Amino acid sequence: GPDVAAYTLRLADDALVLAQRLGEWAARGPTIEEDVALLNTGLDLLGQARTLLARVGELDGTGRTEDELAFLRDERDFVNAQVMELPVGDFGQTVARQLLVSAYQVPLFAALTASTDPTLAAVAAKAVKEVRYHLDHAASWVVRLGDGTEESARRVQAGLDAVWPYAAELFETDDVLARCVAAGVAPDPAPLRERWDSTVDAVLADARLRRPTTTWAPTGGRRGVHTEHLGYLLAEMQHVARSHPGATW
Amino acid sequence: GPDVAAYTLRLADDALVLAQRLGEWAARGPTIEEDVALLNTGLDLLGQARTLLARVGELDGTGRTEDELAFLRDERDFVNAQVMELPVGDFGQTVARQLLVSAYQVPLFAALTASTDPTLAAVAAKAVKEVRYHLDHAASWVVRLGDGTEESARRVQAGLDAVWPYAAELFETDDVLARCVAAGVAPDPAPLRERWDSTVDAVLADARLRRPTTTWAPTGGRRGVHTEHLGYLLAEMQHVARSHPGATW
Repeated sequence: GPDVAAYTLRLADDALVLAQRLGEWAARGPTIEEDVALLNTGLDLLGQARTLLARVGELDGTGRTEDELAFLRDERDFVNAQVMELPVGDFGQTVARQLLVSAYQVPLFAALTASTDPTLAAVAAKAVKEVRYHLDHAASWVVRLGDGTEESARRVQAGLDAVWPYAAELFETDDVLARCVAAGVAPDPAPLRERWDSTVDAVLADARLRRPTTTWAPTGGRRGVHTEHLGYLLAEMQHVARSHPGATW
Repeated sequence: GPDVAAYTLRLADDALVLAQRLGEWAARGPTIEEDVALLNTGLDLLGQARTLLARVGELDGTGRTEDELAFLRDERDFVNAQVMELPVGDFGQTVARQLLVSAYQVPLFAALTASTDPTLAAVAAKAVKEVRYHLDHAASWVVRLGDGTEESARRVQAGLDAVWPYAAELFETDDVLARCVAAGVAPDPAPLRERWDSTVDAVLADARLRRPTTTWAPTGGRRGVHTEHLGYLLAEMQHVARSHPGATW
């Protein structure tokens, strides 16, 4: 029903928006191997987004295609968490954000493999392997930079500090999510948060980085309220598709 | 010897530079499916570039790694054909350039599978399957746009006209190439040109596009002479790696 559609769209937009950000790193990473890893991570996320968006178009009765949902919705209709839309910043900030996101997605998709919704369970079964790799990869970079030179440690700490406040939103609940949890569609966020805390704390300890202590926790993404950054991202992402309305691509 | 190193570096730089350009399309294509295709094409090219660059470091006796060759060389040391460095332009220009490049790479890599150089033969055996797909994909887009709306036909024709003069350089010969051909390392460019002509002509006929008649044929890429565009591309590509000299990434 509408709750499953709304929840599925959140997962889809998380993947779609972060894939755009990773695309900005295409061929600009510190090593060619890293360019390959970033492109592969982006491809994994686009694959998740496509399946989820197509499912939303079925569930909500509109029959919208993946492309209509990706390219013809306005900013207020996107329900990704704000952490996904933050600018890439430098490489340290990129891997810090990826650590926080992947440390959430690993327990999320592991739990979703048992979802009562067959599409979510199927997407999760494939995604859980992908996001485990993303987490290992991001964690190894955070440690390498944090336990590297003074300059690399300073940068990755600054990146972590910048993205950290936005992580809280990943574990928020609201009426839609509460009903999805009750129906066995989605996992309860509280245990996910515990797993996230222990994963992130272990990586930060290895990396000799400080866990930020801020209590500022911006929110609103799940209701379509976004930072100023999403509008620019969507303008770039949607420009080609919208400049030829009705074109059969 | 030095000739094989020089020839291998040309192939490596062709792949590396075009991969950067394709990366600029990450998540900006007209459909999500197309974003996935462009990212996969970029990954194929990066894979080719890595193997070829590592081989250059062995052959030339400098022991340079793939990353040192990619990130620490200056513009005059890049020997890609200029067609690879041209800006992406709009989507029509991107697929037009890809058609011209892939129509060259298909017979090139098919012939290189018989190279007397084992690395080139091995790279070609894998690459020939990849570039066949790139060619089919680019051709289908050129036809779709050329035989589409008046506006899409106008744009892809303009893109084709813009990149066309640079294709001639792909079939040039010089002393290095002549010696590589004589040694069975590289294929003679003349038969490649014939294959290219018939492939491209067939696609343009299907697409109802005009074959440009210009005789202007800019050159110099194989000697390190480039358009003004390569410097900007390298600045972006090399920035992160160079901003931390000596960092163990």
